[in-house]
Amino acid sequence: MPMADITSLWEDLAWERGGRIVYLVLDGVGGLIAPGRGGTELQVAHTPHLDALARASTCGQLEIVGPGITPGSGPGHLSLFGYDPVRFRVGRGVLSALGIDFDLQAGDVAARANFATLDSEGRVSDRRAGRIATDLNQRLCEKICAKVSLDFEGQFFFETVSEHRAVLVPRGEGLGDDLPDTDPQRTGIPPNPPKARHESAKKTVRLVRSFLDQVNQVLAAEAKANGVLLRGFERYEPIPSLRQRFGLRGVCIADYPMYRGVSRLIGMDVVPHPGGVEARFETLQSIYGDDYDFYFLHIKKTDSLGEDADFDQKVAMLEHIDTLIPQALNLSPDVLVVTADYSTPAIMGGHSWHPVPVMLSSRYARIDSVDRFDEYACAGGMLGLRPGTHLMGLALANARRLQKYGA
Amino acid sequence: MPMADITSLWEDLAWERGGRIVYLVLDGVGGLIAPGRGGTELQVAHTPHLDALARASTCGQLEIVGPGITPGSGPGHLSLFGYDPVRFRVGRGVLSALGIDFDLQAGDVAARANFATLDSEGRVSDRRAGRIATDLNQRLCEKICAKVSLDFEGQFFFETVSEHRAVLVPRGEGLGDDLPDTDPQRTGIPPNPPKARHESAKKTVRLVRSFLDQVNQVLAAEAKANGVLLRGFERYEPIPSLRQRFGLRGVCIADYPMYRGVSRLIGMDVVPHPGGVEARFETLQSIYGDDYDFYFLHIKKTDSLGEDADFDQKVAMLEHIDTLIPQALNLSPDVLVVTADYSTPAIMGGHSWHPVPVMLSSRYARIDSVDRFDEYACAGGMLGLRPGTHLMGLALANARRLQKYGA
Repeated sequence: MPMADITSLWEDLAWERGGRIVYLVLDGVGGLIAPGRGGTELQVAHTPHLDALARASTCGQLEIVGPGITPGSGPGHLSLFGYDPVRFRVGRGVLSALGIDFDLQAGDVAARANFATLDSEGRVSDRRAGRIATDLNQRLCEKICAKVSLDFEGQFFFETVSEHRAVLVPRGEGLGDDLPDTDPQRTGIPPNPPKARHESAKKTVRLVRSFLDQVNQVLAAEAKANGVLLRGFERYEPIPSLRQRFGLRGVCIADYPMYRGVSRLIGMDVVPHPGGVEARFETLQSIYGDDYDFYFLHIKKTDSLGEDADFDQKVAMLEHIDTLIPQALNLSPDVLVVTADYSTPAIMGGHSWHPVPVMLSSRYARIDSVDRFDEYACAGGMLGLRPGTHLMGLALANARRLQKYGA
Repeated sequence: MPMADITSLWEDLAWERGGRIVYLVLDGVGGLIAPGRGGTELQVAHTPHLDALARASTCGQLEIVGPGITPGSGPGHLSLFGYDPVRFRVGRGVLSALGIDFDLQAGDVAARANFATLDSEGRVSDRRAGRIATDLNQRLCEKICAKVSLDFEGQFFFETVSEHRAVLVPRGEGLGDDLPDTDPQRTGIPPNPPKARHESAKKTVRLVRSFLDQVNQVLAAEAKANGVLLRGFERYEPIPSLRQRFGLRGVCIADYPMYRGVSRLIGMDVVPHPGGVEARFETLQSIYGDDYDFYFLHIKKTDSLGEDADFDQKVAMLEHIDTLIPQALNLSPDVLVVTADYSTPAIMGGHSWHPVPVMLSSRYARIDSVDRFDEYACAGGMLGLRPGTHLMGLALANARRLQKYGA
């Protein structure tokens, strides 16, 4: 007998009233102790406001997807929002398209595209075409859209993301997504020719083959961006919104396309111009009120610096963020959560599977003895070690947005 | 990919021998720190016997239904008994009928009934008919059973619970339960007319409509109890017993209908007259022996005082219960568990989602360093934070009632 997904139970119990919830997501905040540094990034950073908040919160650790699983950004955030990322699989193609405000429709197939450099033999010599400037990317996308013509009852879109990154979206009836990447993931070999892994993808393969043949013509004269690599083909099927599931009217304050995309995917409004880190806290204060129940403020820099393996700058960024925390506290939200979507330890230079620290402040929280916001202190908190999806249920409960279960 | 329900594995491994298990369930015992009181109800209470037992136990926290879920009494107890309350859904109608020793049969529909006061326009003016005395309730039920006649191949029962509360049970073929409450849940408006939400409930709706029309005639001359409101219609489908699942012959020592009902539902014997709190401990001692393997002693007052938001009286009740604990210890049960079915913090005045403290004493328990029975101390125990359903497996194992899994 299968266990029900606990997140479905919240759907049954949530009502569209109760308190307001603020999530501060410090992307990739979890770390590891760096040799000679005396601690993790959070331990080394001087963060008096985060620590004071920990003393007024219930704390714990979240295992975002599962034991040993290193989450990508999409699954990481879905989990925090109460969407089991194993049940709700959303790939980077769909998220990239959503993240540039592209109006994806059910049945569209989205794929991530890179402008790339091909040598005279057609082998990939640079998978990112020297990271061309975004404005060149835009001109090339316009040219491709104008000159490429695909022979089918439908249409396609080829849109700039930034630098060398773009998105391809074929739209039409019967487009499957079961085809491998054309991006070979290394240089010195040609792109993989499009081919179907399943009957259902044959039509898509025919279109993609024709698209790439024509693109190679259109870009032939380009010095760097003379080819396109595709990966992560994915058919878009809408998923139920935060409001439909949990009765939450949500708003996203994030600048990075991925996080804007995942927010839009679950029906949140997305602030058009969130600005820098300070501006995002100001935006939070200006929009906090009757229009929304759920506020998602995202900070990417903690993750980027972790990916750059820059321990010191990650520490400095944490100290800077700490000075902004009072602006969130001043709103006295019914529930205030600080956490991350995964760990990005500077000594690893990338995402990791390690649980993230979490703290939840509310008038109903069982405040524990944790007195610092870091991985080790939070591990002693009363929330214990839990799956990331649990967070949304705890936030909803603390905001008094869930009815009692059964009599 | 569905996860297996771990409780099913115990079914495979349980044998009908081993030690005896005693559950002391202090209803709603979990609390929150009250401002100015220096702690939770359990922390403030002077409970030397419970604390001594904690020092001789393995301790932890139980999350009864799931993160953020506030359990009702039925799901709360099912969880403690090893029945996943999301898989085994039982409503208050069935539990109320079972709780008055009514012999429910498969396919019966049970609904909770309130005697109510209707004004001259037929609007509800008191949903509880001034909480009429139980003996008046009994006379009215007898009158209704004598005078009301329903035109179908079957029978109906209308039985007193206590004060204004009663139970209606239609019995016959093809009775569905998909109909909303007639109780409008507030005064100043008429009861909701019975109507089917689904085709399968049409026959039930016809019976209920006829029943209520006749009841209004029968009660017309009553000053207060001149109407009946119905809620929680529910078809009874038996669920496998504690003995069938885990090889346990169980007995319930509880006074409140709900807990007697949930015990009967899973095939436990129910002590007919459990008396007050002291008497229940005496009863435990008198029946402890060869007839039963599992003893469930339930105390409701801790929850009622929490619901009344009476911090001091909840503390006093805990101190009183503490003096009785030696009577359970004197039996030297193979496994002694003290816990709750949910938290009822006095500062919230109602059930909550917070985990409950649990302690388990047995000669095989890994005794930890927890030295007090309260929410915070138990959170540091070796059982960790677990779903409530885990408790039964741990109790069975400590009673040596589970075989090895696999070779």
